[in-house]
Amino acid sequence: MDAIQKHLLEEVADLHAVPTGAYNIRANGKSVERNTTSTIDIVSKEDGTGIDIIIKPGTKRQSVHIPVVLSQAGLTEVVYNDFYIGEDADVTIIAGCGIHNGGAESSRHDGIHRFFIGKNAKVKYVEKHYGSGDGTGKRIMNPQTIVEMEEDSYMEMDTVQIKGVDSTKRETRAVLGDGAKLVVMERLMTHGSQTATSEFAVDLNGDGARANVTSRSVAKEESTQLFISKINGNAKCSGHTECDAIIMDHAKISAVPEITANHPDAELIHEAAIGKIAGEQIIKLMTLGLAEQEAEEQIVNGFLK
Amino acid sequence: MDAIQKHLLEEVADLHAVPTGAYNIRANGKSVERNTTSTIDIVSKEDGTGIDIIIKPGTKRQSVHIPVVLSQAGLTEVVYNDFYIGEDADVTIIAGCGIHNGGAESSRHDGIHRFFIGKNAKVKYVEKHYGSGDGTGKRIMNPQTIVEMEEDSYMEMDTVQIKGVDSTKRETRAVLGDGAKLVVMERLMTHGSQTATSEFAVDLNGDGARANVTSRSVAKEESTQLFISKINGNAKCSGHTECDAIIMDHAKISAVPEITANHPDAELIHEAAIGKIAGEQIIKLMTLGLAEQEAEEQIVNGFLK
Repeated sequence: MDAIQKHLLEEVADLHAVPTGAYNIRANGKSVERNTTSTIDIVSKEDGTGIDIIIKPGTKRQSVHIPVVLSQAGLTEVVYNDFYIGEDADVTIIAGCGIHNGGAESSRHDGIHRFFIGKNAKVKYVEKHYGSGDGTGKRIMNPQTIVEMEEDSYMEMDTVQIKGVDSTKRETRAVLGDGAKLVVMERLMTHGSQTATSEFAVDLNGDGARANVTSRSVAKEESTQLFISKINGNAKCSGHTECDAIIMDHAKISAVPEITANHPDAELIHEAAIGKIAGEQIIKLMTLGLAEQEAEEQIVNGFLK
Repeated sequence: MDAIQKHLLEEVADLHAVPTGAYNIRANGKSVERNTTSTIDIVSKEDGTGIDIIIKPGTKRQSVHIPVVLSQAGLTEVVYNDFYIGEDADVTIIAGCGIHNGGAESSRHDGIHRFFIGKNAKVKYVEKHYGSGDGTGKRIMNPQTIVEMEEDSYMEMDTVQIKGVDSTKRETRAVLGDGAKLVVMERLMTHGSQTATSEFAVDLNGDGARANVTSRSVAKEESTQLFISKINGNAKCSGHTECDAIIMDHAKISAVPEITANHPDAELIHEAAIGKIAGEQIIKLMTLGLAEQEAEEQIVNGFLK
């Protein structure tokens, strides 16, 4: 891998060296490095469209890194990765995508990730998106995350897109069985003329199922964002969705939550707030010696941390 | 008017006698009584589709009653009423609709009300919908309320549909100019196999425009409800929408708010909560001597008051 690719890897997966545990590194459309362990197997799909990640039941405190980097301008790829997480497993999965585009054509990565989470299993899923390069070609990422959660399983999703992605259409769907719990934290920042859409659809099908979906976003300059969040309560369950957004410059933000109770014991709550940074917050930091722009940056960073 | 029509009038407009001030009473598709005053004129539209209510600038503390009753089974009507409210006026408008259906065919009233609210004018708009009769024909009401608010005008909408309306599709649209303020309180209860849809669309176009849209609803038995609320912030404005719903028996409720900030100084907030009555609330009232059903009824009545 060259210096640009190594820099992207650092940005999306905090990787400075080869990771410990299982990993699969994909660069410019090809798997370039892979490691499996006694409990985590990674297998290329026969049709070449992606990989299967198979985690044995009872695997504890293991991690899987599956970063993707694109440094070749004009490359478009669709990748299907399936995660089979065995019963009682407890794993962390780090999936990130970095695009460097120095050319005039668009570079695009569509990652479709499916998770089959077994009984009692626990997954932490971290996803970071990053773009760089001063080419006029766009950097586009359209991640799809599809989750099936069995009895008493737990998933935590932590996704970040802070910089350099010109266009993104994020889609996350989850179906929860009895006692399953899903916690999502999405952080998003757009600037320039970027556009971002993020759509969640969660079906709480099992008794005792719980979901908590939180989005925090900042839209700067001419950028636009659309946040859609659907939670269906189909059993004795509880769901909460929250969207907080800071709007700056000439940006536009829409929040469209949708909560539906199809069962009398479903308890669903939604909250959303869109507004600019409060003037007194900026003034407070300016009295501490910061310039106005520095004060704004500090508030935005704190909000997205 | 017969006894049934008089009962409907009481239910929808709290009218036991001829009201004071201006009024127009419509029964089974015809205007049956009308009174105008020196400051409030009521004129039938030339094409016969409804009435124009013209309130002179500066009219203070006056009221207009425009109740509609339908007691003839199978009657379907569409009525267009336009309200012209002059500058600096301060009026209360009571519009209600009662349908008694003792037959096998559906009875339906679609009322399209447009409000043109002048500078600085203040309007309180009260609307009550009620249905009765043991016929198998449905009682259907589809009100549309379209509001244009000029500088610094104020409108308060208070709408209630508590009983006997089998199907309703409510639509409320408002456009607010500089400094205008809209306050909406909607209360809705459905039971049996009733369906109710309520959609709000508010454009905050003027600096200092404010909107506060609140919906409280209870869905019992097999009934279904859909609540949609769109607020667009197109200026330095503030908007708040809130939907609280109690779900009982086998009812279904959806809440779909949509807040869009098209301006960096727009501040928009949404909250929604759907859930059943808390068990401890019922137990508390039961220890005071109420039966379970009485306790539930008391909580529901308090919630919708």
